[in-house]
Amino acid sequence: MQDTLGAFVPGTIVHRAPHRSGPLSGLTFAVKDLFDVAGGMTGCGNPDWAATHKAAEVDAWAVDTLLGAGASLTGKTITDEISLGLLGINKFYGTPLNPRAPDRVPGGSSSGSASAVAGGLVDVALGTDSGGSVRIPASFCGIYGLRPTHGRISVAGMMTQAPLFDTVGYFTRDAMTFGRVGAMLLGEQATDALPTGIVVAADCFALADEPIRRALQPVVDRLRHAVPITVSPLAEGELLDWGRHQRILQKSEFHATFRDWIDRVNPRFSSEVAGAFADDGRIPSSDLAAAKTFRECASKRLDGLLDGRRMLCLPTSPILPIRRDARLSEIRAAVHRIVDLTGIAGLTGLPQVSLPVSTSGSIPVGLSLIGWRGGDAPLVAAARALAREFSIGLFEERP
Amino acid sequence: MQDTLGAFVPGTIVHRAPHRSGPLSGLTFAVKDLFDVAGGMTGCGNPDWAATHKAAEVDAWAVDTLLGAGASLTGKTITDEISLGLLGINKFYGTPLNPRAPDRVPGGSSSGSASAVAGGLVDVALGTDSGGSVRIPASFCGIYGLRPTHGRISVAGMMTQAPLFDTVGYFTRDAMTFGRVGAMLLGEQATDALPTGIVVAADCFALADEPIRRALQPVVDRLRHAVPITVSPLAEGELLDWGRHQRILQKSEFHATFRDWIDRVNPRFSSEVAGAFADDGRIPSSDLAAAKTFRECASKRLDGLLDGRRMLCLPTSPILPIRRDARLSEIRAAVHRIVDLTGIAGLTGLPQVSLPVSTSGSIPVGLSLIGWRGGDAPLVAAARALAREFSIGLFEERP
Repeated sequence: MQDTLGAFVPGTIVHRAPHRSGPLSGLTFAVKDLFDVAGGMTGCGNPDWAATHKAAEVDAWAVDTLLGAGASLTGKTITDEISLGLLGINKFYGTPLNPRAPDRVPGGSSSGSASAVAGGLVDVALGTDSGGSVRIPASFCGIYGLRPTHGRISVAGMMTQAPLFDTVGYFTRDAMTFGRVGAMLLGEQATDALPTGIVVAADCFALADEPIRRALQPVVDRLRHAVPITVSPLAEGELLDWGRHQRILQKSEFHATFRDWIDRVNPRFSSEVAGAFADDGRIPSSDLAAAKTFRECASKRLDGLLDGRRMLCLPTSPILPIRRDARLSEIRAAVHRIVDLTGIAGLTGLPQVSLPVSTSGSIPVGLSLIGWRGGDAPLVAAARALAREFSIGLFEERP
Repeated sequence: MQDTLGAFVPGTIVHRAPHRSGPLSGLTFAVKDLFDVAGGMTGCGNPDWAATHKAAEVDAWAVDTLLGAGASLTGKTITDEISLGLLGINKFYGTPLNPRAPDRVPGGSSSGSASAVAGGLVDVALGTDSGGSVRIPASFCGIYGLRPTHGRISVAGMMTQAPLFDTVGYFTRDAMTFGRVGAMLLGEQATDALPTGIVVAADCFALADEPIRRALQPVVDRLRHAVPITVSPLAEGELLDWGRHQRILQKSEFHATFRDWIDRVNPRFSSEVAGAFADDGRIPSSDLAAAKTFRECASKRLDGLLDGRRMLCLPTSPILPIRRDARLSEIRAAVHRIVDLTGIAGLTGLPQVSLPVSTSGSIPVGLSLIGWRGGDAPLVAAARALAREFSIGLFEERP
């Protein structure tokens, strides 16, 4: 395999054979360089991380599971530095190409995984999602991505960022493979079935830029013909509170994770990532307490809303992928806006799939469904059923 | 020449012959990588700066002046990234060795220049000093260093950091060479003469750590026998105000200098340097106005104190050089404390020499004299006279 996309960490292409034949035999997969692969360095997208850590001794649970299911490992993919970033920009290892929009960022932090899948270098790739790091690159690169229920897929052997939010996710190009891989990682396969009801989050759509809304509206209109739809605002109060509280809690968590390492190593970061540590993680304790309370209430509200096995429909990202040469101020503004929507599943710990249903011009635009807590397999099954029902996007299984 | 100290930027050792023979014939010099050398990149200690700027077309004024005076150029020395730093730590190009204290930092930002001079790789080196970047490495490496009166030596062809504070300075190992080079850069040579009076800044000594005070006290005691001495506090109010206002004004200036470049390039920085940009340079306008007023008053106060051709005596640094493997929090605390003393000449624009007069254990400790505005040549001449009078430190001219 030739890495024509700059998606892989140089020197990590290993071509490891599966443990045995199994349900995923014949599939190749890549893993974000946040997952341990025995004998290799888990570089986490930053050279000073790699230089101050030891090589992995054991495969991460998710890596071992895919190898055990018959898939073969191709190599490790580039991630935003220490998984902080949502655009896929890496100033040390390069920003992987977005094969569907070459002048745009691929999305991150699971950037190389999404790029490699979208560009056909592998069939499947593992990513991680704490604040949107699977969902956003799935949307930007026009592929399927799952962020599971928090705690559903083991994070053993994966670099921790914000334990309250960290999840193992994955990408595929087609819905059929999406289901096959989901069955292995979730340990459960649901029968493909359309959702019994969908709540269209009107305020989430209103928050999105016009090109996003224009790209997704026809899809939502088609959904009406097959599924009972309710249009309703998600938030009782201010929708922006969801992202704001996600930012506060996630920041509190990743500061706790990285604080000592940064103090010890004085690592190099891009200005984008350094900005995340700008104020040494000082968060007023009243803000932190308010965020924790909000998180509980938000979780209860969504659990109630999705009771009866309904799913919530929203744009994956409120914006199109920005240009690769965007200025730092645009980068920061983009990340801020994205979390306004990705913070919803982040804060509540619910599972979310991004579906490659549309484009704006030629740029992919993903639609998301958030499922009920633990309803990961039905969510993946719903994605497959929708794919079959509507033949939207790239739904054919790749031979 | 073999760069045994890691003092030079790799690939920049050029060995350029002088323009003609002259007063500095036979001397070799190095220049901090903040000075233009025609045909080369002025890298400024950061790879993203080098990657986003063009090669220099013309030699900087100070480089041209030394070449015109008969000295030959050896190469370009490592600097703290974009000249922000006082310890000499560079995570991209390496931290130059402090030849006099190998487990300690060399001081910065003119780190490689001081290292190369102290270790005998060159006779002379150019540095820059906005907040202490010549004085501190001179003190830490046990050599002579001059920060001239602001505006006295042309900064043409030198990277700007904080125009209100930027100066061209230089280092030598011995007092005789210190005078010869000063005459060329200052365009003036004063007759070697002891100061007519010295004001020992009692509060500056009190601010220094005990090892610094213990190392310098015997030198001050010996001065009493040769020069009329007054012991007096520098500050009418709180000495720490001087450094505080220096930090505010310098930050305001370097943010204005680098803001657009950072936004355009999203450059990589060590966490130390990134911290300088942490809050996007937001300074309350009332703080800025107060700092400007303080600066005017401080300048008048020092101009008055040094009237009658007296000089102010203080420790160059309040602390010993920290260990090379210090934590980020120690780095930040050290830089903060240093500016408490280097901010005095910074804020007032007065010339300052650091003299290698003592040690603590084997670690160099510099003593500083601040001269009157424009009294750079008498200040250098006083340094030479003191060297001869007391035979303190490394005063012999190197053959």
